[in-house]
Order: sequence, then structure tokens, then C-alpha cells
Amino acid sequence: MAQTKILLAESEIPTHWYNVIADMPNPPAPPLGPDGNPVGPEALQAIFPDALIEQEMSGQRWIEIPEPVREAYKLWRPSPMFRAHRLEAALGTPAKIYYKYEGCSAAGSHKPNTAIPQAYYNKMQGIKRITTETGAGQWGSAIAQAGQMFGIEIKVYMVKVSYQQKPYRRSLIQTWGAEVHASPTDQTAAGRAVLAKDPNSPGSLGIAISEAVEEAATRKDTNYALGSVLNHVLLHQTIIGLEAKKQFEMVGDYPDAIYAPCGGGSNFGGVAFPFLPDRLNGKDIKLVAVEPISCPTLTKGSYAYDFGDVAGMTPMMLMYTLGHDFVPPSIHAGGLRYHGDSPLVSQLYHEGLIEARAVPNLGTFEAGVQFARTEGIVPAPESCHAIKACIDDAMECKKTGQKKTLFFNLSGHGHFDMSAYDKYFSGGIEDYAYPEEAIKDSISRLPKVGK
Amino acid sequence: MAQTKILLAESEIPTHWYNVIADMPNPPAPPLGPDGNPVGPEALQAIFPDALIEQEMSGQRWIEIPEPVREAYKLWRPSPMFRAHRLEAALGTPAKIYYKYEGCSAAGSHKPNTAIPQAYYNKMQGIKRITTETGAGQWGSAIAQAGQMFGIEIKVYMVKVSYQQKPYRRSLIQTWGAEVHASPTDQTAAGRAVLAKDPNSPGSLGIAISEAVEEAATRKDTNYALGSVLNHVLLHQTIIGLEAKKQFEMVGDYPDAIYAPCGGGSNFGGVAFPFLPDRLNGKDIKLVAVEPISCPTLTKGSYAYDFGDVAGMTPMMLMYTLGHDFVPPSIHAGGLRYHGDSPLVSQLYHEGLIEARAVPNLGTFEAGVQFARTEGIVPAPESCHAIKACIDDAMECKKTGQKKTLFFNLSGHGHFDMSAYDKYFSGGIEDYAYPEEAIKDSISRLPKVGK
Repeated sequence: MAQTKILLAESEIPTHWYNVIADMPNPPAPPLGPDGNPVGPEALQAIFPDALIEQEMSGQRWIEIPEPVREAYKLWRPSPMFRAHRLEAALGTPAKIYYKYEGCSAAGSHKPNTAIPQAYYNKMQGIKRITTETGAGQWGSAIAQAGQMFGIEIKVYMVKVSYQQKPYRRSLIQTWGAEVHASPTDQTAAGRAVLAKDPNSPGSLGIAISEAVEEAATRKDTNYALGSVLNHVLLHQTIIGLEAKKQFEMVGDYPDAIYAPCGGGSNFGGVAFPFLPDRLNGKDIKLVAVEPISCPTLTKGSYAYDFGDVAGMTPMMLMYTLGHDFVPPSIHAGGLRYHGDSPLVSQLYHEGLIEARAVPNLGTFEAGVQFARTEGIVPAPESCHAIKACIDDAMECKKTGQKKTLFFNLSGHGHFDMSAYDKYFSGGIEDYAYPEEAIKDSISRLPKVGK
Repeated sequence: MAQTKILLAESEIPTHWYNVIADMPNPPAPPLGPDGNPVGPEALQAIFPDALIEQEMSGQRWIEIPEPVREAYKLWRPSPMFRAHRLEAALGTPAKIYYKYEGCSAAGSHKPNTAIPQAYYNKMQGIKRITTETGAGQWGSAIAQAGQMFGIEIKVYMVKVSYQQKPYRRSLIQTWGAEVHASPTDQTAAGRAVLAKDPNSPGSLGIAISEAVEEAATRKDTNYALGSVLNHVLLHQTIIGLEAKKQFEMVGDYPDAIYAPCGGGSNFGGVAFPFLPDRLNGKDIKLVAVEPISCPTLTKGSYAYDFGDVAGMTPMMLMYTLGHDFVPPSIHAGGLRYHGDSPLVSQLYHEGLIEARAVPNLGTFEAGVQFARTEGIVPAPESCHAIKACIDDAMECKKTGQKKTLFFNLSGHGHFDMSAYDKYFSGGIEDYAYPEEAIKDSISRLPKVGK
């Protein structure tokens, strides 16, 4: 029988995360404060524990994973890697397709890889509460579970429209014992200001971030946690790629191309960064960040300093951005509807070390359904983006006869996204054009500082 | 680090299912036709393939798992076994708790263990279509995926009220390419008869079974498939217990008690039967079938011949039953709302070789939430029944100081049951009393034949 799953033993959970900064040809550009000067660690201490600030700034190649974090990882890690025999057969491609499955975590995505260490380091610092925001709820549920593990109270500001439309992610957050509020709330100045203008505001991720950061900044026992974009988040996610390297070794194979959906960048960075040193050493490997045509941050954005949130409360970061007030169409892959991108991913893309590709909305669902009908697992809409790009290249191999080894990160299952599949089957999923004018418009409002 | 997951390699997927009939002290009582005479294999040929009929009647101890079925099992099997370190710590019990996790199948439950061989054997027989019924949708989605794998069309009659209230299980069935109809339909005589009486009928599992069987019986290219109760279904599920035995060997442990939710019996039989020979050889092991107080088939039912469906269209089986027209309260554990039970489970219970326990509804949710908050995975409401019984016994161990080894089957995740958790958190889950009068009433209508 041909091997389907490539499994590692618990004892093979990596002992260190990989910090890509150590191998980047150029040092990362620093985040800038409102005065245009680099933000130092002290500015972050109001909302982050020291260990995470240190990781955010560190240039050390390997950073040890604390024992209690590895213990917690054991609930589902190492995650399995699969050879997609059935998908390959259905495509009739000579390419070999592998995928790593991060949906086997309790929260159903890769998010717990960073939620757990974030909760742990906050606990070690004596922090009692963490505030955060969540859109579709993947991050909110992951941090809820992590907080429960380490005895930290979690308060989630969930974008009101998601709170109302996605009650099951909300219930999941509650099942793991966290408080969840529909944002905007009347509990913060930021929330009250929005409600004063529009009592029926549906909320936005930008508003929810402002609320969570405000509460953390003004309470000594409370910190803030973010699920993507920042260096320390990508660092934690490298456990995906590190495991994948071992798994490829086990079967004596190596990928010619790696695909991951890219919103804030933690999913892509997590799987791709551990392979970057090989590329820098001359290995012919393509690292492909896949994004929606409707929110084409890397492929169509500006490489410039911009805010991480809509309201302009965060430090400015040098990244690919569509403008911090750009509002992408309401595609179901909520995790990919971000105007910016991780500064590390952005810099590597800017320097030509990774690639980016934008894929059409409808095509991602077609790919997701084809995947489910062959491999079984129903993928999250975000993951469907990577599948789409991988299938496209596998079909290209069919034309050329090339026996490439293709690998994608199946970052999560779609169990809480079935309404999107429902819409797909009833013909309600549409393609969105590249929103050129809207992007031009929001780009025109980029902050002047540091550009 | 203490071991959390006990994993088997793909190559250790069992090669044979275990047939408990070979080791039962007495042969099973035959199913009876409307004339009161035993039903022979020929009566079943209109709706089942020969291989399954043979398995249904077989007394052979080990039945080989066909290679293509083992290949398909490799998509998620062997399933992991976990040591519940965090739950143990939270309970402060000296007991060791293990659980086997069947929710890692694409359909999210143990159902694919039998859906896949059923689709396979039908394919081998040249069958093009399979009809089936589904209530909450776990079985419907499992057989949809299995049909997709082997190129068999699947038509699911889904109880109308579930079809409307559980759109996401329905979407899951569609994602795997099956047809799904709200039953009663106007496509069968059985459905039309119900609709003529009540055009707004919400449907029932009994009606849906009648529709699916009628269509299969009247079309040559079409067979019928059932997700529990029958001998061949329990046979396929023994892969759970067979793997678990190997996993206990790996860690040098052995269970003092095994708990599984029991509705039609395939979940319980699947995990418990492979341990029965040890019990027959004098091993002190308790095999505990856990059911809801509101549908207490084993603990309060009659051991008598009864129909498997409401309308009385199936053969009569000797089993514990609450009467084929008993309607249990609408608990969320839809898989446990069955009036009867597997004849094999029933006979073993009748002969004192297994135990049964009824647990209260609210307590199962409390147990499920405690499990989720310690071990992470959010369990299906059915699985919560086993967890409740196991936690009760672990707390008893705390009183007595006994270091027992307790083991339960976590038969599925609750991702499609979050509305039940939602209700629990808003105080809407209630306990149901033992429905003594209703059971007395339906028991009075048991068929006279063969009792």
C-alpha cells in the first residue's frame, strides 16, 4: 500500500522555533511611532510581555520552545502530512502533491500554534487577562482555548456583524470559557466614539483592534494579543514548516513549490520560512503566497509604511499595503481580508525571495470542493486559495509532463464555514474584479511619514 | 514529557474486523419476517449486496478487510488514542483516563468506518446508487463521502426538520456530491402517504427509512445502507476497539472500564466488542453502554421482538426496545434517540456480559464543556454521554482512592452541534425525566409475533 499519512512521533515536536530574521539578506525595517521615529521595546510593554517583545526584535536564529508550550502542542502536534494520492489521480497529473493539515487542532486551524505560547508568556509575566479582536472567529477561538489552558482570562472583541452571522464560532469561544462581546461596545472610548456616530455600526476588524488595544493599554493586569502580522507570531508558526521538513525527509522527497494562503502572513510564513535557507543556498524552490484577487496586497499593493489598523492607532510598519482604510469585498475567506501584510513576508517579497499569486474567488471554491471530493477534508475558504494555486500548477505539470513535487498548507477545516459552501452550491458565490480604483484611492491616503 | 497521544502507524491498520458472534455464549436470535418466520438471506438481496448479507449472518471470528477499504481508512486511521492528562488533573482523580478520537475522520465521527466498506461492497456488486436516511446528518455525510470515493451515487432522505434546522450537515452532504432531500418527499409511496395526511409533516427517522428502503427495493441498480443496529455495521466498527487494544499494549496499560454512547449500538459495539473475549476469559473489565435517561432503551426497555422502524416495514429483531412508535424528547444527541438497539448489544446485555447506564441530559453538557476546557476538543452531544459516565466513575475513584484505568470512545466532534452548546450557555438545556408512562404505552403496542 502507498503511504498516505506521514506522521511524526510526539517526541519529534521541534524544540526550537526558526527565526527567519537571522537569515534575511537585509535587517527588517523598524516599526515607526507617530513621530516618525522607530518604536522601542518600552513602547510595547503596556500591551505585550517582555518575552514576546524580545522575540519580536530578536535576530537569533533558533528560539527555544518552552516545555509547557511543547506539552500543550502535544494535544495535536506534530500535525500530519498527507500525500494527496486521490487528488493527483483525479487531476491526472504527473506532479506529486503533499499537504500539511493544521485543521486537526481543537480550534481547527493553525492559530493555536501562536495562541498557546502567547498565553504562556503572558502567564509567566503575571498577566491575568488578555484582550484581543476577532473577525470570523478563528483567532478568537484559538486564544480562548489557550487562555483556558494557562488560567488567563480572555476577552474577545468580535466584529459585530460576525458575532451576529457566525454564532457558532462565538459559541466555540464561550465553550473554552472566554468572554466575547460584539464590537463596537460601550466599554471603551474607541467603541463609544463609533456608536455615537452610528449606533447601528456593524463593526470592523479595525474598530475591534482599537477597542482591544485600548483596554490592554489602560489596565495593568491586562495585555493584548494579535493572531498574525507580527514577527513573534510568524516565529511561532514556523513549527509547521519545521515539521514539514522532517516529514519530507522521512519520505525522501523535497518540494519544488510551497503554497499557503496569505492574509496577515502567519500561515504562509509559518510553512515557508523554514525552507528559505535552502533557497538562499541555491535550492530551486518556489515559495508562493496566495491571496484573493479582491484583496491583492502583495501583488498590487504599495511597499510603504502604513498603519496596521483602520484608525491609525498602531505603529506604522513597512509592508505591502492597500491602504489602511481599504475595504475589501466580503469574500468568505475572512482571514485574507487584510489591507496589509507581515513586514517580514513583505520584505522577502520585495527582495524577490518569495512569490505571490492572486486567485479568483469562485475558483477557490471549485478547488476546495474538488479537494473535499477526493481527499475528504472540507477546507476552510482561506485554505482553498492555496489549493487553487497548487491545482493550477499541477495541471500545468500535466501539460508539460513535469513530475514536480508540490506542497501546500491546509491551514484549517471549513466546518464553521459551511454557509459559504451552501452559497457556492446555490450559485451565490461570485468572482470579484481587481478593485483598482478603490485601492488607488486608499493608497492616496497612506501616511506620509517614513515613506 | 509524559506521553499524550498514542499513535499507530498506517501499516498497523487492522487487516481483519472482529466478529463478536464467534465468541458469544449463545447464537444470535434470527430476525423475523411478517409471518413470524426467520428472514433468510434472499429476502435481503433486494436491498443489500451479497458480501454484507454474508457478514450479517456470519459466525466467522475474523473477517478480512478488503485492501481498497484499508486504503481509504488511511485517510485518517489508525485514529489517535489520548491520555487525558489535563482532564485527570482538573478532576484531581487518581484514575487514568484514556480516550480514542474518532472525530478525526473527514465526516467527523466513527460513521465512515462502516460507510466506506458498505460503499465498496455495493460497488463490487455492480450497484450504481445507494439510498439511505439521516437524522442529524452524521450518517448521511459519512455515506456521501464514501459514495464519492467509490463512484456510487448517494441519495439521502434527511428528516425534514433536520434538513431545515441543520443546513450545514446538509451542505456537507452536498460538498461530497450526494443528493439530499427533505423527507417526507413526494418521490415515494411512503412519503406521499404521509404528505397526504399532513402536508406539513416535519418528518421522522422512521418515515425516512421507509422512503429509502422503498426506493432501494423497487430499483434494481439501487441498494440501501444503514448506519447502525445491524451486525455487519457493528462488525466494521470493531476497527476502533482493535486499534485501541494495540494502543493499550503500546503503553503497557489495560482498561478497567470502557464507556461509549449507545444509540443503535455501533459506536459501543465497535469499541467494546474486541475486549469481550478478555472478559469471557476472566478479565475484570466493565463494558458500559451509556444512554440518555430520556431514551433508556437498555436500562428500561423490554427485551422483545420489535420493528426497526416506526412504520413496521423492517423485519422484527430481538432487542431491547421502548416500542417502535416511542418518540423520545428532542435531546440534541440525535444519534441516541432510537427506540431500539443492536440485537448483538441487546443480547450481550441480556446475558449480563455488558453493562448499561442512563445519564441526565444537562450533566452530559457539563461533562462535555469540562472536557473541552481541559482536553481541547469540543465533543458531539452523543460523545458527551460517555464522557459523563467516565467522569462520574473517575470522581468515584477520587473518593475511594482507586487508580483505575478508564477509557471512553470520543466518537465525534461537536462542530456541527454548536447550536446545542449555544443553548447550554444561555441556560436552555434542561433535564428530562424518565418517560415512564410514554414507554409503558408504546411497549403495549409491541408486535405479538415471536415475543
